[in-house]
Amino acid sequence: MPSRYRSFRCSVPWLLLVLQALFLGRALFAFPDTHFRYLPQMYPAFQDVNHMVIFGFGFFLMVLRRYGFSSTGFNLLLIVLGVQCSVLVEDLLNLLENHPSRFGLERALMSMTAVVISTGAVLGKANPVQLIVMSLVELIIFHLSRVINRKFLQVPESPSLMHVHLFGAYFGLAVTSCFPEPPPGLDKNRSTPKSELFSVLGTVFVWVFWPSFSSILAENNEVHWNAVFNTYLALAVSAVAAFMLSALTSKDGKFRMAHIHSAVLAGGVTLSCTAGIIQHPWIAMILGLLGSVISILGSHCLQRCFNPPLKLQDTCGVHFTFGLPAVLGAVAAVLLKIFQQEMVPEQSLGYLAFVEVGAFCQTISTAFITGLITGLILNIKLLKAVHVSKYFDDQFFWEFPHLSVGF
Amino acid sequence: MPSRYRSFRCSVPWLLLVLQALFLGRALFAFPDTHFRYLPQMYPAFQDVNHMVIFGFGFFLMVLRRYGFSSTGFNLLLIVLGVQCSVLVEDLLNLLENHPSRFGLERALMSMTAVVISTGAVLGKANPVQLIVMSLVELIIFHLSRVINRKFLQVPESPSLMHVHLFGAYFGLAVTSCFPEPPPGLDKNRSTPKSELFSVLGTVFVWVFWPSFSSILAENNEVHWNAVFNTYLALAVSAVAAFMLSALTSKDGKFRMAHIHSAVLAGGVTLSCTAGIIQHPWIAMILGLLGSVISILGSHCLQRCFNPPLKLQDTCGVHFTFGLPAVLGAVAAVLLKIFQQEMVPEQSLGYLAFVEVGAFCQTISTAFITGLITGLILNIKLLKAVHVSKYFDDQFFWEFPHLSVGF
Amino acid sequence: MPSRYRSFRCSVPWLLLVLQALFLGRALFAFPDTHFRYLPQMYPAFQDVNHMVIFGFGFFLMVLRRYGFSSTGFNLLLIVLGVQCSVLVEDLLNLLENHPSRFGLERALMSMTAVVISTGAVLGKANPVQLIVMSLVELIIFHLSRVINRKFLQVPESPSLMHVHLFGAYFGLAVTSCFPEPPPGLDKNRSTPKSELFSVLGTVFVWVFWPSFSSILAENNEVHWNAVFNTYLALAVSAVAAFMLSALTSKDGKFRMAHIHSAVLAGGVTLSCTAGIIQHPWIAMILGLLGSVISILGSHCLQRCFNPPLKLQDTCGVHFTFGLPAVLGAVAAVLLKIFQQEMVPEQSLGYLAFVEVGAFCQTISTAFITGLITGLILNIKLLKAVHVSKYFDDQFFWEFPHLSVGF
Repeated sequence: MPSRYRSFRCSVPWLLLVLQALFLGRALFAFPDTHFRYLPQMYPAFQDVNHMVIFGFGFFLMVLRRYGFSSTGFNLLLIVLGVQCSVLVEDLLNLLENHPSRFGLERALMSMTAVVISTGAVLGKANPVQLIVMSLVELIIFHLSRVINRKFLQVPESPSLMHVHLFGAYFGLAVTSCFPEPPPGLDKNRSTPKSELFSVLGTVFVWVFWPSFSSILAENNEVHWNAVFNTYLALAVSAVAAFMLSALTSKDGKFRMAHIHSAVLAGGVTLSCTAGIIQHPWIAMILGLLGSVISILGSHCLQRCFNPPLKLQDTCGVHFTFGLPAVLGAVAAVLLKIFQQEMVPEQSLGYLAFVEVGAFCQTISTAFITGLITGLILNIKLLKAVHVSKYFDDQFFWEFPHLSVGF
Repeated sequence: MPSRYRSFRCSVPWLLLVLQALFLGRALFAFPDTHFRYLPQMYPAFQDVNHMVIFGFGFFLMVLRRYGFSSTGFNLLLIVLGVQCSVLVEDLLNLLENHPSRFGLERALMSMTAVVISTGAVLGKANPVQLIVMSLVELIIFHLSRVINRKFLQVPESPSLMHVHLFGAYFGLAVTSCFPEPPPGLDKNRSTPKSELFSVLGTVFVWVFWPSFSSILAENNEVHWNAVFNTYLALAVSAVAAFMLSALTSKDGKFRMAHIHSAVLAGGVTLSCTAGIIQHPWIAMILGLLGSVISILGSHCLQRCFNPPLKLQDTCGVHFTFGLPAVLGAVAAVLLKIFQQEMVPEQSLGYLAFVEVGAFCQTISTAFITGLITGLILNIKLLKAVHVSKYFDDQFFWEFPHLSVGF
Repeated sequence: MPSRYRSFRCSVPWLLLVLQALFLGRALFAFPDTHFRYLPQMYPAFQDVNHMVIFGFGFFLMVLRRYGFSSTGFNLLLIVLGVQCSVLVEDLLNLLENHPSRFGLERALMSMTAVVISTGAVLGKANPVQLIVMSLVELIIFHLSRVINRKFLQVPESPSLMHVHLFGAYFGLAVTSCFPEPPPGLDKNRSTPKSELFSVLGTVFVWVFWPSFSSILAENNEVHWNAVFNTYLALAVSAVAAFMLSALTSKDGKFRMAHIHSAVLAGGVTLSCTAGIIQHPWIAMILGLLGSVISILGSHCLQRCFNPPLKLQDTCGVHFTFGLPAVLGAVAAVLLKIFQQEMVPEQSLGYLAFVEVGAFCQTISTAFITGLITGLILNIKLLKAVHVSKYFDDQFFWEFPHLSVGF
């Protein structure tokens, strides 16, 4: 049995130092930043994604009753590391590709959503070293997966970046499946009303910023407004459906906050690939409804039927909040594009379907396989995994100078 | 005595399903949305109102110590239902009127403020079915009242929409007066410092977004900036006055958070109709001061003198936060318009006063009468009113899988 | 020994009334506000600073476990008073100077940052009367210091306004050094995990708005984007360094939330004077790193070595969050300007250095000396200082109608 109080003094600071020196070196020797040219309209978009990812998701993750500091603190740390890493990776990819594309800070932040989602799946189980390694590996692979989609499947940049939820959810699930299970008697992975309220705060914040997130990659004003309008409608319908299904599936017909949490965002996730191209509001509403349905029924059925054999661990329910709705969204994107293409029959229908399905399969399988490998690597002795009895506990990572330590 | 644990499984989900199907049907058969045309400058305005109504008011309502989940959760549900309902109602009204006006999402969200305010008055007493019915009825009547103002009194669109606080407060008060009183020994309608802090968080959020709300309907840049500047000054003065009067009216000269809560917003409410047309900053400051004075002194005197005979129930103090300042604002609007008209004596002074006063009286009396009728309808047996002993309690509507249930 | 429950009924309301009457009078007799002309691009900037100062700093200050109401409440009160006072002071200065400069609401809000920072230093020790007097005196002196910089040292407007962190921190430290020390056994100046979480919420909010704050005074689009980009990088690096150094300096290699708090913002403070003129991202990153290092190591060393003899009292750690990084930033600004000037050798190098160093010394010494004088004035009997046993306690200023009074 490992010692219960392992010090991270010898690992975390030096790891951070090395990484930061690397990023600094990149900035030092960088040729003039051609892909950071100023686009006047980009500041509000950058700001919205920044709020959503740092503030919104930071509090969204705060569901566990004794894990509040780690949820927000580590979220901030991973994002500021990841943004710098994204810029570095994009640099290297541009060197390889010979045609530098514009990849601003707002896109670097968008790709961080994948890391945040994966963090939600391993929440409370991984120590900071594991989290940092996981997020950097994940980012590098996500950018590689985008390049594969772009170069070999000719998928345009924007939909490829929008696979971020899909990638994040399945990478995170694969990683967490390699961690030992928490003991059944452990009650620290519960939430309290207080921790749930902070999480609701984060969820509502993410919810109101989602239309900005969906419309950030729009090329022109009409697509932008379309994306905003469709996303808002989908989010509205999925919130209604969340309350509806929560009352239907729970005991006594009461609402369950965990359902509301995940299902109100499901509509936005479902539309992430298609928000700008949907022409009729009712399609967005149907997709929002289906996203919410798949999220709550998936959680209800899977936890009841398949969970014991599958041993699906998932602290924040990212599979139901982001994974399943993103799969649905990808399927919807294929169908929509085929349908809309039918009227403009210039390109081969089969080819289009092949490309879309190919990009989807490539993303999800890359996420799953590399996630598994990452999970195995994270559990080697060197990284000093947290003992299962110390899961979900801030005290292991944070100093509490005060006496009362409960959340 | 009714059973204490009534299930909402047979009512809420099906009601939501029917409503959502209706809204979906509207979207399915809608002619191209002429009144949702893109206006590039509208996105920030829409976003600000969205933040304010969903996030700000959601936490503003969180004053009760055991009602945090319901406050934010039901607020979100009512708003997403209401926005869709607003669009539907506006459609029907446009069909009747034969001249479609532009009614964007941001106006649909603004009219939701009325519902949020009414919810504050019945907070903790109504079950979800009652809340949903109330908010839909209220929205329909509010839109009808706007049409009456526009068609018969020739009041322009913007001031008419700004009657939203007046309508919401008096509709809510009329509804809540039909609910049975909570028993005197009940202590669940108290606040705790923790719940107050969340409520302060929401209040401050609403406060900082109020200038956006006031200036959203401005036609040009100068009016827009005027509205922002005047609103900000009024909010500032009303915050100062709130602290001043709170120390004067409370025991021991201490501040009372409930006073600060309602009075800091009173200045914004008072200016809602006139923010854009005030030419001198000192008028805005005086109005902000009067709004705060009427809010705190009203609460102090009414609760001391008239409350026992009047039996005014009002969980969130919406009468003092929104009702009285909105009345003051309407009076100020009449006086201001008459005074400013005097210098441009083209229109009859009497006619102008008649129109303004008429619109005010029509709005407030419609709100009060229909609110009373709605309150009576809500208390029929079919809607399974909450028993008074179960007022103000999250446990009645939400599942708590954790053991510790206190907020 | 003074009475423990002193009433503020005879002082606070009348002080507020007099001040508000003064501001109202200024608005009443003001000539048309030439310096409040509309600049269309200014609204988002104004809004961002407003959010950051009122919401962000209001919750940032909420570290003490029994001082939540006062932290946010008094913050709001001081800011709305201060903004009005700033406008008044700027009016008088313009009268004296004979050439009215444009000083919009957003600049009035920026100068409030000094007051917020000073409030952080005396948090929990000063009563409302003392806070109000302190903030008004501070504002007047800050504006005078700006005028001295502008008139006698020919420092441009923007860098002079950016000395706001420097001024606020050292003024606050000087004021707080005149207050009697809290008794060693007092445990009310501790934080609890709950109060820290609210404070984290505020910190993250301030963090995400900092790029807006840094870029608000930019003259053109390129400088604006430069400022945003450099500030974001500096903030990111300082967050990484905060985690790194927190683990290195604390016991057991754990993170300490108080370190994270102050150090994540240090990068932004360091860059406040230079964000727009830095040409290479690596300079911004180095400055962010140094800001974080000086913040955490300063706190570690000073508290260990110098604190007992120096008797440095500082509730919120503003010396380490704002003071030291602002000094570093001012030094960096001198070096940067000299270096960048070297290539364009039109102006005398010595003169430039003299001006920059002069402005820095003038600001810091004015802040320190007037802060000491203000601190002595605040502790005269008339202002009824809080007794040390009643420090850090909401109950002294706020009514708690509920029984449970713990935060």
